[in-house]
Amino acid sequence: MTTRLLAADFRPTTFGWRVDGPVATLTLSRPERKNPLTFESYAEMRDTFRALSFATDVKVIVLTGAGENFCSGGDVHEIIGPLVQMKEQGRMGELLDFTRMTGDLVKAIRGCPQPVIAAIDGVCVGAGAILAMASDLRLGTARSKVAFLFTRVGLSGADMGACAILPRIIGQGRASELLYTGRAMGGDEAERWGFYNRVVAPESLLDEAHELARTLCAGPTFAHGMTKRCLHQEWSMGVDEAIEAEAQAQAICMQTEDFARAFRAFAAKEKPVFEGN
Amino acid sequence: MTTRLLAADFRPTTFGWRVDGPVATLTLSRPERKNPLTFESYAEMRDTFRALSFATDVKVIVLTGAGENFCSGGDVHEIIGPLVQMKEQGRMGELLDFTRMTGDLVKAIRGCPQPVIAAIDGVCVGAGAILAMASDLRLGTARSKVAFLFTRVGLSGADMGACAILPRIIGQGRASELLYTGRAMGGDEAERWGFYNRVVAPESLLDEAHELARTLCAGPTFAHGMTKRCLHQEWSMGVDEAIEAEAQAQAICMQTEDFARAFRAFAAKEKPVFEGN
Amino acid sequence: MTTRLLAADFRPTTFGWRVDGPVATLTLSRPERKNPLTFESYAEMRDTFRALSFATDVKVIVLTGAGENFCSGGDVHEIIGPLVQMKEQGRMGELLDFTRMTGDLVKAIRGCPQPVIAAIDGVCVGAGAILAMASDLRLGTARSKVAFLFTRVGLSGADMGACAILPRIIGQGRASELLYTGRAMGGDEAERWGFYNRVVAPESLLDEAHELARTLCAGPTFAHGMTKRCLHQEWSMGVDEAIEAEAQAQAICMQTEDFARAFRAFAAKEKPVFEGN
Repeated sequence: MTTRLLAADFRPTTFGWRVDGPVATLTLSRPERKNPLTFESYAEMRDTFRALSFATDVKVIVLTGAGENFCSGGDVHEIIGPLVQMKEQGRMGELLDFTRMTGDLVKAIRGCPQPVIAAIDGVCVGAGAILAMASDLRLGTARSKVAFLFTRVGLSGADMGACAILPRIIGQGRASELLYTGRAMGGDEAERWGFYNRVVAPESLLDEAHELARTLCAGPTFAHGMTKRCLHQEWSMGVDEAIEAEAQAQAICMQTEDFARAFRAFAAKEKPVFEGN
Repeated sequence: MTTRLLAADFRPTTFGWRVDGPVATLTLSRPERKNPLTFESYAEMRDTFRALSFATDVKVIVLTGAGENFCSGGDVHEIIGPLVQMKEQGRMGELLDFTRMTGDLVKAIRGCPQPVIAAIDGVCVGAGAILAMASDLRLGTARSKVAFLFTRVGLSGADMGACAILPRIIGQGRASELLYTGRAMGGDEAERWGFYNRVVAPESLLDEAHELARTLCAGPTFAHGMTKRCLHQEWSMGVDEAIEAEAQAQAICMQTEDFARAFRAFAAKEKPVFEGN
Repeated sequence: MTTRLLAADFRPTTFGWRVDGPVATLTLSRPERKNPLTFESYAEMRDTFRALSFATDVKVIVLTGAGENFCSGGDVHEIIGPLVQMKEQGRMGELLDFTRMTGDLVKAIRGCPQPVIAAIDGVCVGAGAILAMASDLRLGTARSKVAFLFTRVGLSGADMGACAILPRIIGQGRASELLYTGRAMGGDEAERWGFYNRVVAPESLLDEAHELARTLCAGPTFAHGMTKRCLHQEWSMGVDEAIEAEAQAQAICMQTEDFARAFRAFAAKEKPVFEGN
């Protein structure tokens, strides 16, 4: 059960990957074009997040972009063009293959047990805004711009789960505005609305994201995985059913050694050292 | 399939109706009493929003009130009085007919594909507050007052979907306060809580609502309809199910000509002209 | 059907209890240790809130803590220690008995018809933060600290419904941060995020909570109970289903005498006197 599918020797071809202890950093890295996504990078990210479910040596993931931008979304020439061609040729099955692949990336981000921290500067639009939204925590800069601009390219705001997830983060009214108009949400607005957990200076963005990642890694990472799972599965449960789900989930966590470690450290007036089991 | 049930020649009897190109403006219009609702206006609005589902010439609806007020809710003499009489005479079926009719109005507002923009000044209370809540976007003035004052008339906050919808817009705690106490939410508070998308000056309220409406009309209106439908149907879905729903929804939107128009305009370095198909 | 299980002569053994007319005040009261919970106080509170469902003489409950603190959560020596022992001895059934008992307390708070107002000063952490979260309305002080610090003791944020309820109050992103990190939310932050309905001065906290309680008691308390029930049961309903649920709920409320009282008072230009039936 303890496998290491992903580690220091994993070499993705479409994005940057770096592992510092238990923290993996995934960097979208075509900075000359503000880090657009391609069919290949979608697929490789989907596979990576799926594999992370079994990567017991990675405890937290930082998701960021190279060169002062997060992500410009699906590449116009490499994605939008081919999709328009599929449309012109009536290849509906392939269009659905694509939208399901992008959705599967969000499912994989929500499905892996590691908390995902997005570090967002500059442009964060289209599928890039979705990646930020799909993360667990978001640090951003005041100058960053987050835009769910699907309507600008003739599509709906119903992309990769945005109509379900965004309203739960910033509220139904604000989400509706962003999804209908495609307008950019500024950094301070993003913090005020609860999209960003914090606004930080661009030069310290990645450092602060890593500092937060290390803090989480120093915690009970098995329990973090349970928190993430429960946030996910209780999404559309009734209150009473969610309470029973958590009674079971927390009873499982009480069987971990980390729980005993915390108590022993408290009794000894020490700081607990968690091991994630 | 392309029908025009509603257009410039539609003449409602209980509210104002004006069509400017693809924008319809519905004006509650008994300003001397702050635009209360009656049995007749409820029914006519319900039927109008139902018909709008098939009105392909109307792309956005602006909902407002005449004379510096939005709506004072159900008329005390014309609605509350008769309802109390039904109660005294034990005519439960008729009471349920009424509450279902009011609920059907909200269902019709949420069910038509056009985004509904509420432009709110002055008094916006009771069923008026519900109409604002049921809209997709809300522009308000600083001096406006929104009150879900059902408890003030001896009723519950469970009116026309308020216990389900209001918490998703402003949060469960704030919604609980408004629904239990019936107190008014001020304009700045409404913006801060995410109920209003924007606070604007009273004299420019309707202009800004129409400007926003025209912006939406200039977008891909078929896709807007899909955004609205997905915001609705994913309300109580799990995350993974919502993602699959959007994969299908967006694949449908990729089959529209508007998607190709956007790409061609981009390639030609022009602004896309959407046609809603 | 009209029973008085709880009244001025109810004498709980593990917390303070005071009844002033229709307002009951439950005070966590081991101030020398910041009002921790024990197995016994959990059970007695659960039973009390369950009994409140049938206590027709109590209309609103104020929940607070003695000595300038709300609650320090589960007692380390009296709860955490024994739980760790159960873990060491593999007594899984007993761990689940415990987590279900704590969950049952939240279910009982959400299940009784009376609105629960939490008055929060000082420390409000762990299960204390859950009790605040499970209340209907929250008044707090600027100096108070609310921390869902389960990860600090090696457990998950999935405790007593927190992964379901907290995101609906303050948003998914902010709730995720508090649940993963266990960090304290300050008083002003709690107001800004919608966790507190209001921040008040410590010296007037209890007075303001009681004032709010009296205001609610002066309202239509049967209708308040319906509001609470609908907020609960519509949690994971679709919009259309919630609207039908409210059509039925409000039709029931229209059969109450309070509805007629409000109309008669309005017609007589008087203030209505509600009786909760």
